[in-house]
Amino acid sequence: MGENTQDVSVSTLLIDVGDLASIVQRVGLDAFMDELIAQLQSQIAAFDPARVSEHIRTGFNYSTPETGLVEWMPAMVNGDVVSVKTVGYHPNNPAARNIPSVLATTALYSTETGALVGLTEATLLTALRTGAASAAVTAHCVPEGPIALGVVGCGAQAVTQIHAISRIRPIERLVVTDVLAHVAHSLAERIPSGIADVEVRGPGEFDSVVSELDVLCIATSTPTGSEPVVRIENPRPHLHVNAVGADFPGKTELHIDDLRRATVIPDVVDQCLVEGESQQLERDELGPSMVEVLGSKVSGFAQRHTIFDSTGWSYEDLVVARMVVGYAQKFGLGTSVHLQRTPADPYDTYESLRTNSAGELSQLRSA
Amino acid sequence: MGENTQDVSVSTLLIDVGDLASIVQRVGLDAFMDELIAQLQSQIAAFDPARVSEHIRTGFNYSTPETGLVEWMPAMVNGDVVSVKTVGYHPNNPAARNIPSVLATTALYSTETGALVGLTEATLLTALRTGAASAAVTAHCVPEGPIALGVVGCGAQAVTQIHAISRIRPIERLVVTDVLAHVAHSLAERIPSGIADVEVRGPGEFDSVVSELDVLCIATSTPTGSEPVVRIENPRPHLHVNAVGADFPGKTELHIDDLRRATVIPDVVDQCLVEGESQQLERDELGPSMVEVLGSKVSGFAQRHTIFDSTGWSYEDLVVARMVVGYAQKFGLGTSVHLQRTPADPYDTYESLRTNSAGELSQLRSA
Repeated sequence: MGENTQDVSVSTLLIDVGDLASIVQRVGLDAFMDELIAQLQSQIAAFDPARVSEHIRTGFNYSTPETGLVEWMPAMVNGDVVSVKTVGYHPNNPAARNIPSVLATTALYSTETGALVGLTEATLLTALRTGAASAAVTAHCVPEGPIALGVVGCGAQAVTQIHAISRIRPIERLVVTDVLAHVAHSLAERIPSGIADVEVRGPGEFDSVVSELDVLCIATSTPTGSEPVVRIENPRPHLHVNAVGADFPGKTELHIDDLRRATVIPDVVDQCLVEGESQQLERDELGPSMVEVLGSKVSGFAQRHTIFDSTGWSYEDLVVARMVVGYAQKFGLGTSVHLQRTPADPYDTYESLRTNSAGELSQLRSA
Repeated sequence: MGENTQDVSVSTLLIDVGDLASIVQRVGLDAFMDELIAQLQSQIAAFDPARVSEHIRTGFNYSTPETGLVEWMPAMVNGDVVSVKTVGYHPNNPAARNIPSVLATTALYSTETGALVGLTEATLLTALRTGAASAAVTAHCVPEGPIALGVVGCGAQAVTQIHAISRIRPIERLVVTDVLAHVAHSLAERIPSGIADVEVRGPGEFDSVVSELDVLCIATSTPTGSEPVVRIENPRPHLHVNAVGADFPGKTELHIDDLRRATVIPDVVDQCLVEGESQQLERDELGPSMVEVLGSKVSGFAQRHTIFDSTGWSYEDLVVARMVVGYAQKFGLGTSVHLQRTPADPYDTYESLRTNSAGELSQLRSA
């Protein structure tokens, strides 16, 4: 068999964080964010459950060796591509080992062959799409014109929340807080320059600012079962809140009374009821979904007090991963690996084990 | 921020099919199979549901652009490692594009950080562990001494079924059949040499051989809803059948009457009832599970007519992936990639986007 052995390749395009950086640099960070917001807006507005299949996010939660989880978020555009984002969430990572609490990758599979065709770093992509999703919803929920933006939790998610929202509204005031003062104070260095000056408030001083805000973003690593990280008192009539941090059964950031006074917009209804802010509510207390809001199936939102319950949607991950793979192919970036190199004879299970020209498996056998 | 920026690496060990071949060649194919059979035997015998967490296999089944599925099989050894094997199954792959019907990868995640620490080709590993699992069960279910082995379906799985079983019993007779005559006739070239001469029978001629067999392995790509691929008439009292091909709702290879005459040993009870041969049976018609048989919690099996309903267990995938990663580390094989390279400041979402010494994100902004 040796003569006609020829490897047929099924290649996987690996896109690491350096490739992502190159893509974003070539497109331009603002242009990349603008395109992502526009893609989420248009593709979620046109979302057709008959064309997209999903499995609810699930995974392993554990407390040994430390509190964490590994979970996967599968989605399929029927007849096109399967996307599975896998997320590790370890809240102790930054303090204990100086790595992000969220570590994610997204795998793309061909529905023509079943092969793994792409694997991209998705920690940065998750932050980008989470920011873009908030911006897309915020654009529907606050009046035109400059805004006062408040931020509770100044970690990795805050950067993309602020950046994305700056692309849809001028930010005339930016007030932030974090239980870790050094994290709050370093935020100004971590967001793109020129967005706004950053006013830092201590955690105890923030609630009094809430009544002066047009938009509030909340993204903390508060432990499950803790007190609300902020109270919403005397909000402006159109205050829009992007509640990003609740993504775990038992983990919420807002008070149930504050939820009930607002129109709550879930990104994925069933998921929000399990692990979002909406886990504090009954299904019939929820407002229209993100699909309905972005599809403009509801109107008048720019004058209502709204809360976007953003638990993270697998379809957002599919959209951003496809966008990135498209740019990688266009720019010739990423590394093509033959992880699943396949034999010339698909039935020849041990073909890859033969290296000699005679192709004799017997030579592989141990003595 | 430019000066003190230092990448902290979270590395992923990629093990492609070439690395796997190198590992198996260095260990020796027989020695590798022997170790895998022994590991499955011992680790499944000692299986403790309090120490291992699992999610039932699920995924996307589709018929556009062609019949196929992408599914994932997650398992966790608590406090140690999460394993997620993802399988693409496209029965048309061999005929339509000369690639295997099963394309699989296994991802390993650290429960210490949530990071993707390993990604290995798993098409070959799936075939190896499926063969090893059959051998481990067969060793409990047939008397010592030389055996007559029959094989229905001579594709990729047949190779490892025959090889693995040859490691636990001498094969004095090997009779095979396949609906594709050229696949049946090429089998002799695809199995390790020296196991046995291969007698090929046409599909219509095989049923009459069944009564002369000690062990029968069935692994076909028969479509869902088709007739049984073989009937079991007048079996030897100890005939053991490894039923490997049923792995899809609606796909079965055996007749319900033939199942009912045997003791059926499911590998994963709930999964077998959905997609194994056992989907034809009620729960109370099942025999002891693979865990019970390998744990010797039942005895006297070597004199009973048994059918191993092998749907493929995520824990088997975890065991073989860990074994392979161990050898890759020992031999210095595989490629370490920094897919999830992480910033020096875990909160600095855009750190990787700064390449100039001033670290100014503003320079990234589009005009």
